[in-house]
Parts: sequence; C-alpha cells; structure tokens
Amino acid sequence: MDVIELTFPVRYVETDAMGVVHHSNYVVWFEVARSEYRRRHPENYAELDRQGVFLPIAELEVRYRAPARYGDVITVRSWVVELKSRRVTFAHEVRRASDGQVLAEGETVHICLDLQNGALRAIPPKVREGLVPYLIQPGKQK
Amino acid sequence: MDVIELTFPVRYVETDAMGVVHHSNYVVWFEVARSEYRRRHPENYAELDRQGVFLPIAELEVRYRAPARYGDVITVRSWVVELKSRRVTFAHEVRRASDGQVLAEGETVHICLDLQNGALRAIPPKVREGLVPYLIQPGKQK
Amino acid sequence: MDVIELTFPVRYVETDAMGVVHHSNYVVWFEVARSEYRRRHPENYAELDRQGVFLPIAELEVRYRAPARYGDVITVRSWVVELKSRRVTFAHEVRRASDGQVLAEGETVHICLDLQNGALRAIPPKVREGLVPYLIQPGKQK
Amino acid sequence: MDVIELTFPVRYVETDAMGVVHHSNYVVWFEVARSEYRRRHPENYAELDRQGVFLPIAELEVRYRAPARYGDVITVRSWVVELKSRRVTFAHEVRRASDGQVLAEGETVHICLDLQNGALRAIPPKVREGLVPYLIQPGKQK
Repeated sequence: MDVIELTFPVRYVETDAMGVVHHSNYVVWFEVARSEYRRRHPENYAELDRQGVFLPIAELEVRYRAPARYGDVITVRSWVVELKSRRVTFAHEVRRASDGQVLAEGETVHICLDLQNGALRAIPPKVREGLVPYLIQPGKQK
Repeated sequence: MDVIELTFPVRYVETDAMGVVHHSNYVVWFEVARSEYRRRHPENYAELDRQGVFLPIAELEVRYRAPARYGDVITVRSWVVELKSRRVTFAHEVRRASDGQVLAEGETVHICLDLQNGALRAIPPKVREGLVPYLIQPGKQK
Repeated sequence: MDVIELTFPVRYVETDAMGVVHHSNYVVWFEVARSEYRRRHPENYAELDRQGVFLPIAELEVRYRAPARYGDVITVRSWVVELKSRRVTFAHEVRRASDGQVLAEGETVHICLDLQNGALRAIPPKVREGLVPYLIQPGKQK
Repeated sequence: MDVIELTFPVRYVETDAMGVVHHSNYVVWFEVARSEYRRRHPENYAELDRQGVFLPIAELEVRYRAPARYGDVITVRSWVVELKSRRVTFAHEVRRASDGQVLAEGETVHICLDLQNGALRAIPPKVREGLVPYLIQPGKQK
C-alpha cells in the first residue's frame, strides 16, 4: 500500500483578511498531491492520452478542521479509497507539518470520460492497475 | 423567499490547460455569491463583529455537471438550506447565463465560532432573523 | 478615442493577511479589462486565430498607489498607449469606485507571435485597425 | 554574497487555456522566493513588527522570456539590487530547472511604511544590515 505525500510552505498569497489560509486553497493542495501521483507514474497518464480519455473531477468534499497560517509548513497526503470501473475516488489529508495537526480532509471523485464526445468510459486496465497500490480501504492503517 | 443572484464573465486566469475553468474557481464563485448577501445586509455582519463571533466554513461539497469556458458568462445563485442554532448551510448553483445550463452545484456549512477562543457559539438572534428570508426547504421552488 | 471600463467588487479570496488585496490580483484585474476589449470586438480575435498568431504578454509593469480592501468596488480602465507593427502596449488604471482614488497603474506589452513556431510576426492589419480607436497618446485627456 | 533559491513544480491550477502558466503566477513565484528570505531571517521580520513598520510592494516589473508548462519544475532566485534608506529593490529570476532556460525576470520595489499612519519611514538599521549580504550590484556575478 502506498500513499502520496508532499510537504511545502504556505504561500503568502494563500492567506486572506482573517489572517488564515483561504478555504479554496485546500482544494488546490489536494490537486498538488494528485499531481505527484502523475509525476511518479507518467506512463499511466500517457495511457490515458493514448486511449483518448481523461479523469475530470466530478465531486469534491472538504471538511475543515483547523486553520493553516502563513509560516506553517503543510503536509498533504493522498490515496485511493474507491476504484470502480468508470470512477476513482481519492482521499486527501492536510496536516501542519510541525505538530501533525489535521487541518482539512476531503475526497475527490473522478470519472473517466471520452475526450471526443464526453461519454462515460471504463478506466483503461493499465491505469486501473497503476492505482491499485494506492487503494486503502477506509478505516485501514495508512 | 429570497435568493442571491450574481452574473459575471469567466476570467481568463480561471481557465486551465484543459481549456476549461479549473475546478477550484467554483468554490470562489460560491463565495462571491455569499459576499453579495453581506453587501445587502451589512448590519448583520456588523452584529457578528459586535458579538465577537464569525462564521467560518466547516464543510464544502461541490458536484460538477459541465465545464465553464472562457467567453461564458456565469450566473451564481445562493440561498440557505439549513439554519440551526450554531450552524447555517448555504446552497449554491452555477449556471451558464446564455442557456441556463447547470455547471456546478454545492453546499457550504458555516459554524458560529467565538473570535477569541474558537469555541462554538449560537448564531446571534439578529443574524439568524436576517437569514430566514433566504431559507428554502430542499425540493421547494426557488 | 475609446477606453475600456469595468466595475466589480473585490473578492474576499483576493485579500491577504495584511487585510488588503494581494498585489498579484491587480495583474488579473488588468487582464479582466483587456478581456472586455475582446468581448466588444470578437471579430478581431477571430482574425488572430485565422492568421495563426497570438498576442502574449512580454512585459508587465505595475505601480501601487493605495491598497484596495474587501468591501471596495473597483473600476479598471484600459486603453492603448503604443501601437507598433509587432507589438502593442496597453495602459491600465485601477480606481476605488466610491471616491475615484487611484489604487494602481500599469502597462502590459504584448508581442505578436506565430502560434506554430513562436516567431515574431506583424500584427494583422484588421486587428491593428481595431486597436486604433483605443490609442491615446500619453499625457492626453482620457 | 547570498542568493535565495527555491525549486518547486508547476501547479496545474497555474496553467491557462493556452496550455502555459498564466502570467500572474510569476508574480506569486517572486514572492515565494522573498518569503524564503523571511524564513531564513525571522529576527529581521520580528524587528519590523517591533518598529511598527512594514515593507509593502510599491512597484513591480516582469519581463517574460519563455512559457512555463505543467510538468516543468521551476527554480526561482532572488537577491537585492538596490538598498536605500527607505526602499529596497529585489531582483527575481525564474528558470526551468531541467535546462536552466530563463522563463521570466523582474524586480519588486518595496518601501518602508509606518503601520499606523502609512508615512514613509527609514528601514530599521538591523533589517538593513540583514539585507546587505543579499545585495549584488547589477552586472556582477551571482
């Protein structure tokens, strides 16, 4: 079982007038973690292109636990919680690196669509296989 | 019953390399609609300040239906779907103005917190009353 | 002589932990004004596509005069200050709508490039003609 | 002589519909580099607070050389090019890490202002001293 993990400092532009990180940035940080999956497995994304499909986000959920602030270093972790024939769900967890405090958690559901006509398609087998090592059943140890 | 409604063009910076609006911007557009509520009712926000409380976002959910593109004009509508003593839930709907196509829908849950110590507090009565006209039961006509 | 003018409220996401609008957003607002030019003259942008050229930004300059804040309504004005065969320079001015206070000023230089090979090209004649009405010599009345 | 240097991947949200990084993000990357200066020298920023002054951006200039793309890793370098009693100018350079290609260059001018009344103030001596090691005369080897 594998988990994506990335660490980076809060950017000043990400703060808002309440003095904390604006809630929209956690959505971006979730994606930053998913991009790391892509960097590790470029062959799977090449396969998506070859098959003429893509995996746009269909649903997003975020639960905010505590605010991040400028000066904090952030750790984002991401893994797969559900893998169906035509959709995959990633879980994401944002922590403050200094003390491990959970700042936000959430999921993104991605569906497999045909680039040409937008029709639902099955996730290509090679791409599915590449996601299996990141699949962790909810409640299991990460 | 009242609904917040705002119309504005897609900004080029909001697009991404797929040629569509990046999914994080819908979260910003939801907030743009909620800000209009604030502009209409500044007295309610002054009351929040007087009581030393604020209404940060605790949960966010978005369901993406169809992509927005540069050149599109967007209409965002927002109303209240749940009003409890210590939390309020706003619903949001993003449509393409030209044909009314729904592009995204979602909810944000806001909890009432003490500015000093972060403890849960009751939404001040005046603020609650100000929200009642925007409360629409799910399934009712907007 | 013509000037692009657009008015919109500050978005909360645009503020930062100093309680003012983050300086990067003025760059976005400049572009929002230039996009209005595009909306008014779609035929000129279609001509760019037909000729296989585009007008990317090559230089940017901003002078910050006073901070914008959440709650402010912003007016952005844009016009052309220089029109050469292969480049055009837009001027931009950001004011607070309530009292006309100038918040920022700046210029963007755009060069005409070939979409295929990135080579410098002349701005297509029809596009140049479309820009002439927006050309105001520096120091002239806007 | 010292130079700030930071390396990070392009975020997907930073791309636009032309398939390249939107020009406003270079302004953010410049600031990400300046923030690293702050992380290295927290005592200088504490001194700014003690003296009741801050260093907002007064002028910004960017020259765009070549586009960054999703998949690129970026290196930003920053140093001081001018240090006067009441203002400091930082230079910034954005390169593609893989081949060292310069993507953008620019400067930000910061003035020292009183937090209370916004009046121009001298940069506190301790803060000036902290900036001297980063001062590189234009044209000198970095």
